[in-house]
Amino acid sequence: MKILFIGDVVGSLGRDMVKEHLPSLKNKYRPDVVIVNGENAAHGKGINEKIYRNFLEWGANVVTLGNHAWDKKEVFEFIDDAAYLVRPANFPEGTPGKGITYYKAGKKELAVINAQGRTFMPPLDDPFRVVEVLVTEAKKRTPFIFVDFHAEATSEKQAMGWFLDGKVSSVVGTHTHVQTADERILPNGTAYISDVGMTGPYDGILGVKREDVIRRFLTSLPVRFEIPDEGRKQLSGVVININKDSGLAQKIERIMINDDHPIFY
Amino acid sequence: MKILFIGDVVGSLGRDMVKEHLPSLKNKYRPDVVIVNGENAAHGKGINEKIYRNFLEWGANVVTLGNHAWDKKEVFEFIDDAAYLVRPANFPEGTPGKGITYYKAGKKELAVINAQGRTFMPPLDDPFRVVEVLVTEAKKRTPFIFVDFHAEATSEKQAMGWFLDGKVSSVVGTHTHVQTADERILPNGTAYISDVGMTGPYDGILGVKREDVIRRFLTSLPVRFEIPDEGRKQLSGVVININKDSGLAQKIERIMINDDHPIFY
Amino acid sequence: MKILFIGDVVGSLGRDMVKEHLPSLKNKYRPDVVIVNGENAAHGKGINEKIYRNFLEWGANVVTLGNHAWDKKEVFEFIDDAAYLVRPANFPEGTPGKGITYYKAGKKELAVINAQGRTFMPPLDDPFRVVEVLVTEAKKRTPFIFVDFHAEATSEKQAMGWFLDGKVSSVVGTHTHVQTADERILPNGTAYISDVGMTGPYDGILGVKREDVIRRFLTSLPVRFEIPDEGRKQLSGVVININKDSGLAQKIERIMINDDHPIFY
Amino acid sequence: MKILFIGDVVGSLGRDMVKEHLPSLKNKYRPDVVIVNGENAAHGKGINEKIYRNFLEWGANVVTLGNHAWDKKEVFEFIDDAAYLVRPANFPEGTPGKGITYYKAGKKELAVINAQGRTFMPPLDDPFRVVEVLVTEAKKRTPFIFVDFHAEATSEKQAMGWFLDGKVSSVVGTHTHVQTADERILPNGTAYISDVGMTGPYDGILGVKREDVIRRFLTSLPVRFEIPDEGRKQLSGVVININKDSGLAQKIERIMINDDHPIFY
Ligand SMILES: [Fe+2]
Ligand SMILES: [Fe+2]
Ligand SMILES: [Fe+2]
Ligand SMILES: [Fe+2]
Ligand SMILES: [Fe+2]
Ligand SMILES: [Fe+2]
Ligand SMILES: [Fe+2]
Ligand SMILES: [Fe+2]
Repeated sequence: MKILFIGDVVGSLGRDMVKEHLPSLKNKYRPDVVIVNGENAAHGKGINEKIYRNFLEWGANVVTLGNHAWDKKEVFEFIDDAAYLVRPANFPEGTPGKGITYYKAGKKELAVINAQGRTFMPPLDDPFRVVEVLVTEAKKRTPFIFVDFHAEATSEKQAMGWFLDGKVSSVVGTHTHVQTADERILPNGTAYISDVGMTGPYDGILGVKREDVIRRFLTSLPVRFEIPDEGRKQLSGVVININKDSGLAQKIERIMINDDHPIFY
Repeated sequence: MKILFIGDVVGSLGRDMVKEHLPSLKNKYRPDVVIVNGENAAHGKGINEKIYRNFLEWGANVVTLGNHAWDKKEVFEFIDDAAYLVRPANFPEGTPGKGITYYKAGKKELAVINAQGRTFMPPLDDPFRVVEVLVTEAKKRTPFIFVDFHAEATSEKQAMGWFLDGKVSSVVGTHTHVQTADERILPNGTAYISDVGMTGPYDGILGVKREDVIRRFLTSLPVRFEIPDEGRKQLSGVVININKDSGLAQKIERIMINDDHPIFY
Repeated sequence: MKILFIGDVVGSLGRDMVKEHLPSLKNKYRPDVVIVNGENAAHGKGINEKIYRNFLEWGANVVTLGNHAWDKKEVFEFIDDAAYLVRPANFPEGTPGKGITYYKAGKKELAVINAQGRTFMPPLDDPFRVVEVLVTEAKKRTPFIFVDFHAEATSEKQAMGWFLDGKVSSVVGTHTHVQTADERILPNGTAYISDVGMTGPYDGILGVKREDVIRRFLTSLPVRFEIPDEGRKQLSGVVININKDSGLAQKIERIMINDDHPIFY
Repeated sequence: MKILFIGDVVGSLGRDMVKEHLPSLKNKYRPDVVIVNGENAAHGKGINEKIYRNFLEWGANVVTLGNHAWDKKEVFEFIDDAAYLVRPANFPEGTPGKGITYYKAGKKELAVINAQGRTFMPPLDDPFRVVEVLVTEAKKRTPFIFVDFHAEATSEKQAMGWFLDGKVSSVVGTHTHVQTADERILPNGTAYISDVGMTGPYDGILGVKREDVIRRFLTSLPVRFEIPDEGRKQLSGVVININKDSGLAQKIERIMINDDHPIFY
């Protein structure tokens, strides 16, 4: 099984990149499942139903979220009906939506889990225990399990990777919006990367207009963060090859598309 | 001018990697200046004089630090006499040591600045203003200026990169111990990477025994973090080419050496 | 010299309490100077010119602020002309407004300083050093110096109190919206209290509708915090007696007015 | 039923105060149950078996803890056998010790619950849900329920108070080491105070040598925090009267004993 994952899509430039490149990427890599992190898809803050549908139309199969899941109020209206939308599983019981979903790829099925870290982030239920329960549940249905761990601290992300090593197909980190170069297959067979990186404006700061962020650091005053809707763009992702029998990973490859890293299809 | 920078050296395995690979790396890349971040060199916590001297003997020219600068009390005894040791410049006035040093490479001189971020880190003076003052000072002596910005948050790091774009030769991030893949030459000529990554144990978590870190996350109880002194190792670095006249960067290249990324000299 | 200080005024209920009680309080305590913390006066978030003017009309002489100083954009338009409005002094150079002001009370003059803590709060310049500079400046004009230290952590607040003991007339804490019972004259003559407490809704949580705050803790979802504009109210303050020659404090007395602590004039 | 609660006992001076005053306080207030927060009893950091036994000998019936529960390794050896020692209930399943205990006072029984906040504190399980479960359990045995909520943020503490209003006899806050003046009976009958305050050195900062804390704020360097073992002392507590039938509170009274607030028995 092959998975293509695209990291935090930010605003219209990010969505443009998905729409523009996903067909060619699918053509090039032939993934069985395409997953997109959409927590910043709606102008940097959350997601709405239209954008979720767009992602599916453009070729994604599952959409994951993160701490920005709830930024658009509209999410509460459609999340329970969105079969392929997952929000961090470790929000408390009773939270709308779900933290795991299953996608049928031919005869095989991929479990997709989303969880959120707690270090340098707001309090939530323990992601390690919550994910462990979901993994145990998923194991009964399928050996193919993908975890998007949306977290800030590299320590917490690597801990999740090693904690799940050999138990899931892949743990990929999201949230910092910067792709890390530490992709690897851990000793027991789990594909890991600390952060897949961001899909959106290439010359902003994490997808935000850079002048705004710099002004915020220089003044400590409130600054409204604008999301550029023009300018250069990038796409960040990973492709993961999974053994069709064991569910363990064989290969993880980073994708980065921008003016400094053009892609040739 | 060519600079080789080696990211946070952790414990004896990290020091072994520097000792073992630095001669070959110098041979391969022919850098004019070698800089090593040594904040975790003494068993993960700080640095002592012996290790500082070792780094210089093994081929480093300047050693930078970070939030762990003060972990070994011995540092207070030698930091003021260590000409090529810099600690974060934005500690308050009166702090031992210095935040900038100059290294003569042939006829040229490189200013090396160390600063520490404040997001998700303890309070310090504003790194942007402090670095701006030091850069202005350094500009009077040399166009070659290198900044090691030791920070947690990708936003703060990228903000520093863009803030200094065109004013310094390079801004490299350290502290998260995970190499990022976002190295680039910013539009006005500054070489940038969010984090160079860590030099030390390859199968730990940020250089710490992984069982300890996982146990900490699972139990929320105090856990003593051990630094492995055997096992597989890695080295993380960058090489930066700087235009000999303008002091602006032409190229930035990541170095990652481990069992999954062997180097051939 | 006698000072009456009223803690963080929240919303219309808080303003009502000031308007309603200040005349009687002035009648009862005969303060030479009345200071009001107004950082939450405009519906919980910041202050506008009208409210600032109201405070002066109702009998206040100086208005202090805090981390919410900038919530209302209008503040940027009038803060530089508002002679008796102070914002935290340790915002970076170039920030609109000022961190110290002087109020003439008869032949004497009171220096009023506002500063903000950094523990569990956003990064700013070092409040200890900034306040020290302002105190030195103020000492040249007057022995009467009042500091409103707007901070979260009890450790940082008490540290400021002891740091300034004997150098200023009083250090009062604000920001937590809960009055502390640790008012005292420190050994060298500075009147101290960790927090004066909040003036506004009595049955909310820190002045916010309690259902909103509880829902936020229970769900970890975004919740819009409403400020009650009806219901029971409270006023929190302190009265400080200062020796007319030394500028040191002789007495500090808490004021708390609510249904459980009615006041009789 | 009458409860006497003594806030965070710090070091030998704090223990001295308990030993010295508890007999007289018991004589004066005639409590049915005496509870002591002992998280800092062993030189500021944790507790050992000897000190726990001492508290019981000196007249305490139950000892509560907090974030410092685990500072002394010895705690792991005796906590499971210490019937009247409770640690925060919202540590993850499998943590040694327990978060609730029951004390027989004559024919009645008091449930004592300890929980820890998450705002400005390390991640733990949701204290609201965990306490709700324990309260439901306790209700089956007794209407007398006492909660020591060990937390930093006034918002989280007040939220817990209002959340449990009418469901428990009392919610008292600990951890900030500064007594608050907001004690009250909430509308549905729960006695509440945001923080009971600290028992120990009177002229330190939160019980620590004040020079150490100030130096830490001024230098941002590592400072070893010493706990004074001589000097002036204070004791902080509350007395709560509970209706013998309903289990709801009738009165809450603060106790503060120090040189500025001498007690006369
Ligand atoms: Fe994101
Ligand atoms: Fe995020
Ligand atoms: Fe480091
Ligand atoms: Fe560091
Ligand atoms: Fe406030
Ligand atoms: Fe505030
Ligand atoms: Fe404590
Ligand atoms: Fe505590």
